[in-house]
Amino acid sequence: MNSEIKKIAIIGLGYVGLPLAIEFGKKYSVLGFDINQLRIDELSNGKDRTNEADLEGLKLAMGLAANCEGKGLTFSSNSSDLIPYNVYIVTVPTPIDQFKAPDLTPLLKASEMLGKVLKNGDIVIYESTVYPGCTEEDCVPILEKNSGLKFNIDFFCGYSPERINPGDKVNTLTKIKKVTSGSTPEIADVVDALYSSIITAGTHKAPSLKVAEASKAIENAQRDVNISFVNELALIFDRIGIDTTDVIEAAGTKWNFLKYKPGLVGGHCIGVDPYYLAHKAESLGYHPQVILSGRRVNDNMGMFVANKVVKLMINKGQTIKGANVLILGVTFKENCPDVKY
Amino acid sequence: MNSEIKKIAIIGLGYVGLPLAIEFGKKYSVLGFDINQLRIDELSNGKDRTNEADLEGLKLAMGLAANCEGKGLTFSSNSSDLIPYNVYIVTVPTPIDQFKAPDLTPLLKASEMLGKVLKNGDIVIYESTVYPGCTEEDCVPILEKNSGLKFNIDFFCGYSPERINPGDKVNTLTKIKKVTSGSTPEIADVVDALYSSIITAGTHKAPSLKVAEASKAIENAQRDVNISFVNELALIFDRIGIDTTDVIEAAGTKWNFLKYKPGLVGGHCIGVDPYYLAHKAESLGYHPQVILSGRRVNDNMGMFVANKVVKLMINKGQTIKGANVLILGVTFKENCPDVKY
Repeated sequence: MNSEIKKIAIIGLGYVGLPLAIEFGKKYSVLGFDINQLRIDELSNGKDRTNEADLEGLKLAMGLAANCEGKGLTFSSNSSDLIPYNVYIVTVPTPIDQFKAPDLTPLLKASEMLGKVLKNGDIVIYESTVYPGCTEEDCVPILEKNSGLKFNIDFFCGYSPERINPGDKVNTLTKIKKVTSGSTPEIADVVDALYSSIITAGTHKAPSLKVAEASKAIENAQRDVNISFVNELALIFDRIGIDTTDVIEAAGTKWNFLKYKPGLVGGHCIGVDPYYLAHKAESLGYHPQVILSGRRVNDNMGMFVANKVVKLMINKGQTIKGANVLILGVTFKENCPDVKY
Repeated sequence: MNSEIKKIAIIGLGYVGLPLAIEFGKKYSVLGFDINQLRIDELSNGKDRTNEADLEGLKLAMGLAANCEGKGLTFSSNSSDLIPYNVYIVTVPTPIDQFKAPDLTPLLKASEMLGKVLKNGDIVIYESTVYPGCTEEDCVPILEKNSGLKFNIDFFCGYSPERINPGDKVNTLTKIKKVTSGSTPEIADVVDALYSSIITAGTHKAPSLKVAEASKAIENAQRDVNISFVNELALIFDRIGIDTTDVIEAAGTKWNFLKYKPGLVGGHCIGVDPYYLAHKAESLGYHPQVILSGRRVNDNMGMFVANKVVKLMINKGQTIKGANVLILGVTFKENCPDVKY
């Protein structure tokens, strides 16, 4: 990282990338990049169908660019527009495939594209949730291959896990402490300073990329395991014939009891991230029992609820075949739009 | 419960029963009963080898009895001394056998003994950790058989799970909110009022014995599962080659991350109680995946540590066979004596 003047490109403008582009855009020259031209067109017109962005901030950041102030936010879906930038932040999705295995396609495609624009001194920071080791073992070789540059000599990497809580208007990007890391101690300082300049809640500099990657993977896995525990309780108490809510309320009067509630888990994170950690563990010969049993229990809760409904219908003498079922409230999270392009 | 004047006998004077006997003894006429004559002799001399009791309180409660004030604490190992009492609180241990199945022997023996002294209007309150349904399905039939009395007509039951935290001098009996319950709504009120008279932190009246039983079983199971999760992480991160403490520190900067630490679990509670819940679940045809995978991981941590030590010794070129190993700090909990009679 030779240049003191940081020009930042954000790769992927979903609910993670867009707020980041806006905040950095208020202070730096920022390109918001997405392969989806429709998304770029909408954002260029100040419209965000994810409802995550601060639209006033978006207008402000775009205005700074329009006034040629040397900072501000512009948008593009053309990868050649990435060339003038020196910090690339990757915020593409990391989903799982139909076999619950990590699907790194968007991450590796983004790395391939960045490899082709990478220059001496550039930094690539990943924010996408991955398993520990993914940046160095999966992304870096692609960056090297496509750029012809050498990692930690010609270019560098950072990892700073996104902690966006979709639908949460209180704990927003700048108000959530951010974990940072870099591929060398010097780059770790640069990455940390960069995020510190926009995150008012402060940063936590992790000792390595792997530690930063792992820290994100375990956050959602812990939540998944805790929800699976109360879901398992709900399955047991259903058979015993007592109300799980009553039991949790009583146990909750102890100072250290954690009041998780049974229910479905979904979305991009809790039902997905634990598989990344499990995948890595399996590759190293360890079968994660707690994490995967939690996934199994949570994944089967929909089936449990459906079975319950069918039994209740049978008990009421209703005809199951051909019956209509009204499903209410089946969203990823309350007040989060279903974003489709 | 006809008599307004409550005379309370505590069955089992371990780290649960003794503090209870002392607190009740300050306000009521209380008999502290234990089958161990040596324990009775020591307590009668103001000595408590569990270190849990408030010795000043013990002296005070015993003094009240000695002065014939109609309240105060006396001790006995003779079951015929139990006859004049009308509230019996059972605080005997509920361990597991070598097959990790609940060993109800002390609980059932205590119930058998109480059945023989039970009179019209008496209340038997259990504090021992059990699975939901144990009081009504396992203990009540023994009480009925040995007394010839009818449950909920001639005598009644309560369940109020102990929440003693051994070695903790801050969260002591009277300062921890207590869950109460009774076998009828009226008896639930009596049990709740009784505990309210000594627990300054207040009580929580659960809607049924089963709910109160379940609330205790899940408290320690939740802790066990959470520790097993970080233990599983430690096993994975050991293979990845990163420090689990670093990862937990980074993840802990998120507001909702729970900072459990990897390690061994032991003692009377965390490594035992989950098997009670699991046992009941299995009897109802549900195999608890999350709870038992947690138990497996935690039970194997000792082996993991031992293997690590052997590998480190091999790496240092030491001879394993015949080597001496110094084990430090292997206690149930810090500052808790190993109580043996």
